[in-house]
Amino acid sequence: MSQDKLTILRNSTEHILTMAMEELYGQDKIIKAMGPATNDGFYFDFDSKKSLKISKDYFPQIEKQIQKLIQLNLPITTKFVSEKIAREMFKDNKYKQAWIDEIITKDKKIRIVTIGEKGTGHYFPDICKDNHLKSTGTIKAFKLLSIAGAYWHGDEKNKMLTRIYGTAFESKQDLKKHLWQLDEAKKRDHRKLGKELDLFVISDDIGKGLPLLTPNGTVIKNQILAYERELENKAGFQEVTTPHIAKNDLYKRTGHWQHYKDVMYAPFGIDDETYVLKPMNCPHHYMIYESKPRSYKDLPIRLSEPGTCYRYEKTGELSGLTRVRALTIDDSHILMTEDQIEAEFDLCIDMVIKMFKSFGLNNYSVRLSLNDPDDNLKYIADPKIWKLAGEKLKKIVKKNKLKCEVATGEASFYGPKIDFMVKDAIGREWQMSTLQLDLFMAKRLGLTYTDKDGQKKHPIILHRGLTGSLERTLGLLIEHFAGAFPVWLSPVQVTIITISDKQNKYAKEVVDTLKEEGIRVSLDDRSETLGSKIRDAETQKTPYVLIIGDKEVVTKKVSIRQRKIGNIGTSTINKFIEKIKQEIEDKLIN
Amino acid sequence: MSQDKLTILRNSTEHILTMAMEELYGQDKIIKAMGPATNDGFYFDFDSKKSLKISKDYFPQIEKQIQKLIQLNLPITTKFVSEKIAREMFKDNKYKQAWIDEIITKDKKIRIVTIGEKGTGHYFPDICKDNHLKSTGTIKAFKLLSIAGAYWHGDEKNKMLTRIYGTAFESKQDLKKHLWQLDEAKKRDHRKLGKELDLFVISDDIGKGLPLLTPNGTVIKNQILAYERELENKAGFQEVTTPHIAKNDLYKRTGHWQHYKDVMYAPFGIDDETYVLKPMNCPHHYMIYESKPRSYKDLPIRLSEPGTCYRYEKTGELSGLTRVRALTIDDSHILMTEDQIEAEFDLCIDMVIKMFKSFGLNNYSVRLSLNDPDDNLKYIADPKIWKLAGEKLKKIVKKNKLKCEVATGEASFYGPKIDFMVKDAIGREWQMSTLQLDLFMAKRLGLTYTDKDGQKKHPIILHRGLTGSLERTLGLLIEHFAGAFPVWLSPVQVTIITISDKQNKYAKEVVDTLKEEGIRVSLDDRSETLGSKIRDAETQKTPYVLIIGDKEVVTKKVSIRQRKIGNIGTSTINKFIEKIKQEIEDKLIN
Repeated sequence: MSQDKLTILRNSTEHILTMAMEELYGQDKIIKAMGPATNDGFYFDFDSKKSLKISKDYFPQIEKQIQKLIQLNLPITTKFVSEKIAREMFKDNKYKQAWIDEIITKDKKIRIVTIGEKGTGHYFPDICKDNHLKSTGTIKAFKLLSIAGAYWHGDEKNKMLTRIYGTAFESKQDLKKHLWQLDEAKKRDHRKLGKELDLFVISDDIGKGLPLLTPNGTVIKNQILAYERELENKAGFQEVTTPHIAKNDLYKRTGHWQHYKDVMYAPFGIDDETYVLKPMNCPHHYMIYESKPRSYKDLPIRLSEPGTCYRYEKTGELSGLTRVRALTIDDSHILMTEDQIEAEFDLCIDMVIKMFKSFGLNNYSVRLSLNDPDDNLKYIADPKIWKLAGEKLKKIVKKNKLKCEVATGEASFYGPKIDFMVKDAIGREWQMSTLQLDLFMAKRLGLTYTDKDGQKKHPIILHRGLTGSLERTLGLLIEHFAGAFPVWLSPVQVTIITISDKQNKYAKEVVDTLKEEGIRVSLDDRSETLGSKIRDAETQKTPYVLIIGDKEVVTKKVSIRQRKIGNIGTSTINKFIEKIKQEIEDKLIN
Repeated sequence: MSQDKLTILRNSTEHILTMAMEELYGQDKIIKAMGPATNDGFYFDFDSKKSLKISKDYFPQIEKQIQKLIQLNLPITTKFVSEKIAREMFKDNKYKQAWIDEIITKDKKIRIVTIGEKGTGHYFPDICKDNHLKSTGTIKAFKLLSIAGAYWHGDEKNKMLTRIYGTAFESKQDLKKHLWQLDEAKKRDHRKLGKELDLFVISDDIGKGLPLLTPNGTVIKNQILAYERELENKAGFQEVTTPHIAKNDLYKRTGHWQHYKDVMYAPFGIDDETYVLKPMNCPHHYMIYESKPRSYKDLPIRLSEPGTCYRYEKTGELSGLTRVRALTIDDSHILMTEDQIEAEFDLCIDMVIKMFKSFGLNNYSVRLSLNDPDDNLKYIADPKIWKLAGEKLKKIVKKNKLKCEVATGEASFYGPKIDFMVKDAIGREWQMSTLQLDLFMAKRLGLTYTDKDGQKKHPIILHRGLTGSLERTLGLLIEHFAGAFPVWLSPVQVTIITISDKQNKYAKEVVDTLKEEGIRVSLDDRSETLGSKIRDAETQKTPYVLIIGDKEVVTKKVSIRQRKIGNIGTSTINKFIEKIKQEIEDKLIN
């Protein structure tokens, strides 16, 4: 079922949920506020009379009522009404009155979606702009999931409402899979594992949405970065280093201030100038491009930087590493001629796919965001150029045999783009890499190169986010691997366990030998039982545990336990080093 | 001659300069403002009547008059006077009146330094708190150097005055050496070389004091960082990653806001909270330490990070990479028990010295900054602890056989420190690495560990800046090497030059082979003459140039030119790779 069909299904299920609650508890006690479909389901926000405290315990009763309304296969109809009629319909509901205010301000029509019919005992009209099912009977599988508080319009200055989360699917099987995913996701929650494996810290003293990576987390980040640098080096990218702030005027010059202000941090003054934290690295890179004359012979110029950017996200939206205010974009800006577009996209797509493979993310597709030809206002640059660029990207996607969904009207204001969507180990979809074409900025900023004919021309720009955000990628990978990172990424690759103090000397030799080979190793020589030491290493999800007892000391060997498998026999240190180094080099997923 | 003696000499020379100018041009035309001794000499700021435009052309005349006043061997005397007398003495000079205001506000006495005697035709009193020579005849060597504009009190809102820079030394030989240094420094100026070698960019659009490292500059920075990581890895340091901002309250908690506010950037709001750019990495690292319980068994914990910090410096103080507002500190914070202090200092000193050696900085000494036992107000913590810590540091300096100068009263408010001073290739002294003991912050922040006895105790902290600031180090190294970086740091290590197009194919093979070995190589296959291609590589100070002509294609060899030496014969590619890789590994200075 396409996402569009699922959205329609969930829109209607959410209305039925509201209807069921009104029928059960009375319209005077449940004051409906709002409720949209989401990527995974839907939610419904409502205000309630003090006498009624809805909790999770009410879910079976509500679900039963929803089921009843589904079985009745009530018709769902839509119509437009005047402001006057709408205000009368929801006269006791201040939230609906506020919706009406908003719709009127935007000069839009008030659309009413009605389930059931007046006088039948089942009649539920609501203001709604979204598409719906024709009748309630189509819903085959739904579930209420959780309950929480939520501020009206997400603003903590407003009243706290109650929110019920639920979901709906076309089949019971799809729902079952989703519920399993939710359960698995809870076990893998990167916030929980991040604490257990000591990967990152959120500190109240530093601030919200600003994670600090601990030594373990930094090992993983640095491994990813080193790998990215290796790929970039081979592909002829050149790393640069730029500050985390810039004059605010720069963002007025680029147009970001006008289009992007809401997600930027507040400006601050230095002497008589106003500065701001950078929300992206592009303008900084352009200033390096601009710092000397460029010739067509110099192009493509591929500037790259793992640059930490700062973006304002609402407190309520923040979550661990996956929704943050400080994000390190593994960024690149390729400045090129028009006839280099295809080769540069190919180069980047190749890097992205190599990266995915090294993360064991083998299920991916792309979303090609194009302009909406009917909405010229939103886009800068000539519609003809947009069309040509769109065609070029379609061709690239096809040539690279990428599974592709086209999203018309989803392009940024300056060009079409390709986003990579990956499915993790439990089938959830994440957006990662982005390849964004920019047809406009070089002209706006006056970035030029001298072409063969001696003329000054504007380069085309390709913005490349290799994974997009290193913090988000770390969060994703924690959940994808459930904390059991492949050897190349594991903070500790090998734990050495001694059976008793007698083996300590040999164990330290083994540690030193492995360290000398660049392997990340830890020694557990505590006076605990072997079993408890193995359990601790398993909790820490260390890929290999080497056990050293008297026999190993005599034979100069180690006894190897592999994560998920258990005992895999004894080996000389050299053989083991050979094995693990090969796995690291191959970026083996195990 | 010690710096103190030189300062006295320069104080007096500056007064004689002023006196000479007043005698030459009249007290009504030269309105003296101020003039201190500096590390290298002195300067004198004055206001002048419009009819008098002092330029460098006046220097011979002024120098002659100074020489005359020196030969007269005029006495220099000091006395204290009342405010009334002082105001009367300088009644026509608004700058001196402002000085008097300031001295009176601070409740200090007004000290007058007089050269010569009333009625002798040579009489020059001035307000001055500094020490002076007994008579002018002691000055053996001086020179006026340059002239520039400077704002009164460094504030661009004030009037622009004229500033004359000069210097004085005890011997003509010392002066000659200094003038050579100045001349050499001008040739090596990292701002000039930075442009010529395309190492960094200062962009008006980004902001003052915020350099952007180009691909070439980033190669050098990344080489330094990789080497530092290697040293840290071996020594058991653990890298962390922290954001560039924090809540302002954190700096109130640490006390930095109270002691350090003037060099911090202006705060900015996010929701209802106030944030600020971090001026140092310490508090962020403490929050990682604080994030879980620590035992004595875990100590020492050595957290490190190349963390970019933002500090406010006055616009007039900024200079290229050496005085910036964004500085990447190669920082570490070692949290330890008291009896680990010595071993940890030894570890850090060892790293610092290794680092210096790899930069070819073999002439270094330390400055041991201790508290002033008579000024308890300035320091937090118990005077007894200060005394013990001071003794410990003295012992460490002695054991490590470091040439040491003790600076009493120069310690930070939280502990004594060791600063490393290095002399560059032309003998100028730079301050680099810092090892700062912190006896206080763990207690203030409540950072603890559980000791053997089960008691919670506060760790001692050692702040380590390995080079101090990567930007400043890059600036220093550009000047130290005059842009001719050793092979391990060179952005381009090898340039391949073809004699004609016929060798292009083989040249490309050579390029690929070198790249495969991780060598940074560039190909010059332009249709220019061999001579001009060699000259270009020399201008770019590339360590090795490989020349490929027909003979080299046939023999599968390369003809090698080494920087500073010239032709060093032909070699097979493999032999050359072996040679250069060994030089890179050894971090050979050549």
